[in-house]
Amino acid sequence: MREQLINEVEIIPLEVVIRNIAAGSLTKRLGIPTGEKLNRTIVEFYYKDDALQDPLVSEEHIITFGWASQNELDEITSLALRVNDFLAGYFSAIKIQLVDFKIEFGRLYKNDEVYVVLADEISPDSCRLWDSQTKQKMDKDVYRENSGYLLDGYNEVAKRMGLLTQNGASKNKKPTLVKG
Amino acid sequence: MREQLINEVEIIPLEVVIRNIAAGSLTKRLGIPTGEKLNRTIVEFYYKDDALQDPLVSEEHIITFGWASQNELDEITSLALRVNDFLAGYFSAIKIQLVDFKIEFGRLYKNDEVYVVLADEISPDSCRLWDSQTKQKMDKDVYRENSGYLLDGYNEVAKRMGLLTQNGASKNKKPTLVKG
Repeated sequence: MREQLINEVEIIPLEVVIRNIAAGSLTKRLGIPTGEKLNRTIVEFYYKDDALQDPLVSEEHIITFGWASQNELDEITSLALRVNDFLAGYFSAIKIQLVDFKIEFGRLYKNDEVYVVLADEISPDSCRLWDSQTKQKMDKDVYRENSGYLLDGYNEVAKRMGLLTQNGASKNKKPTLVKG
Repeated sequence: MREQLINEVEIIPLEVVIRNIAAGSLTKRLGIPTGEKLNRTIVEFYYKDDALQDPLVSEEHIITFGWASQNELDEITSLALRVNDFLAGYFSAIKIQLVDFKIEFGRLYKNDEVYVVLADEISPDSCRLWDSQTKQKMDKDVYRENSGYLLDGYNEVAKRMGLLTQNGASKNKKPTLVKG
C-alpha cells in the first residue's frame, strides 16, 4: 500500500517572518537602514487576518488570545531558525543572500499526537534574495518596486539552483518555482 | 548629611504598556472588542521614537537592536506585573477598574551596580480607569474622545483616593495628580 504523501494540517494563524538583514517593513517601522546586517536573526509573528492587514504581534498577544501555546511558539521559533540556517547556508553556496522570508506552520494530528510542522511553500514570492556581490534583487520586490522584469530574477535563482539549463529551459516538465 | 532623594536614571527607550482589559490600540490592531477582559495580563513594548510614532516592538527587536538586554527585559516585565498587581488591587478597593497603563523604566547606577527601576509618573494621563459599575471613563480618553469634562474624572479618582475633600479642595498645597 502506498503511503499517503499529503497530510492535512490545521494552519496556525501566524505569518512567521525570519530576518537576517534589514529590509521592508522593518526599515520603515523601526528606522533601521535597508541592508544593515542584524546582530542576530529576528523572528517576527504577524496575525493572519486580511481585514486587519496581518498586524505584528508579540508572544504575549499570541498566548493571551490562544492563537498558539507557549510550547508551540517555542517549537515554531526553533523550527524557523533551523529552516533559516539551512536556507541561508544553501543560498550562500550559490552566492545569494537570504535577507528574510515568511513561512507558516500547522498542526498535524497523527496517531493521537499533535506535531507542529512547516506548512508552506518557500519561493522567491515569500523570500528576499539578493545577489551576494551586487545586492541585485531576485525576488518579488522587483515586482513590488516595478524595478525590472520579475522573472529574470526568479530564473536566475532557478539557474543557480540547477533547476534550469543555461538557456532557461526547465529540467522538469512543469516549472516548480513560480506560484500560479 | 541629608540623603539625596532624587536619583538620575538613564531612561530605557521603551514605553511599557500593561493591559488587563481590551481598549485603545489593542482593539483597533487586533480586532478585540473594547471591554473584553483579557485571559491574562498583556505586557507590550513600544520603541520610544516620536518620528516613528512609538512603534510596537517585540523582545526580538529590543534585544537585537540593544535597547535593553534579555535580563533587563525580564526584570522590566516582572516589575511591570508587580506594579499592575498593586495598582489593580488599590483601584479595585475604590471601585475603579485598571484597564491599562503605560510606564517607563530606567537604569540607576549606584555603588558600581546597575538597577532597573520604575522611572515614570502614574496618573490618569497614562492609565485607563473605568468605574467598576458604570464603566464610565475617568482618564485621558475623555479628552481624546471629547466626551465630557476631563477634570471631572480626574477629580473623582482623586476623591476616591482620599486626596480631595468632598467639595473638591485639594488636601495638599499643590495638586499632585494632574501633570502640568
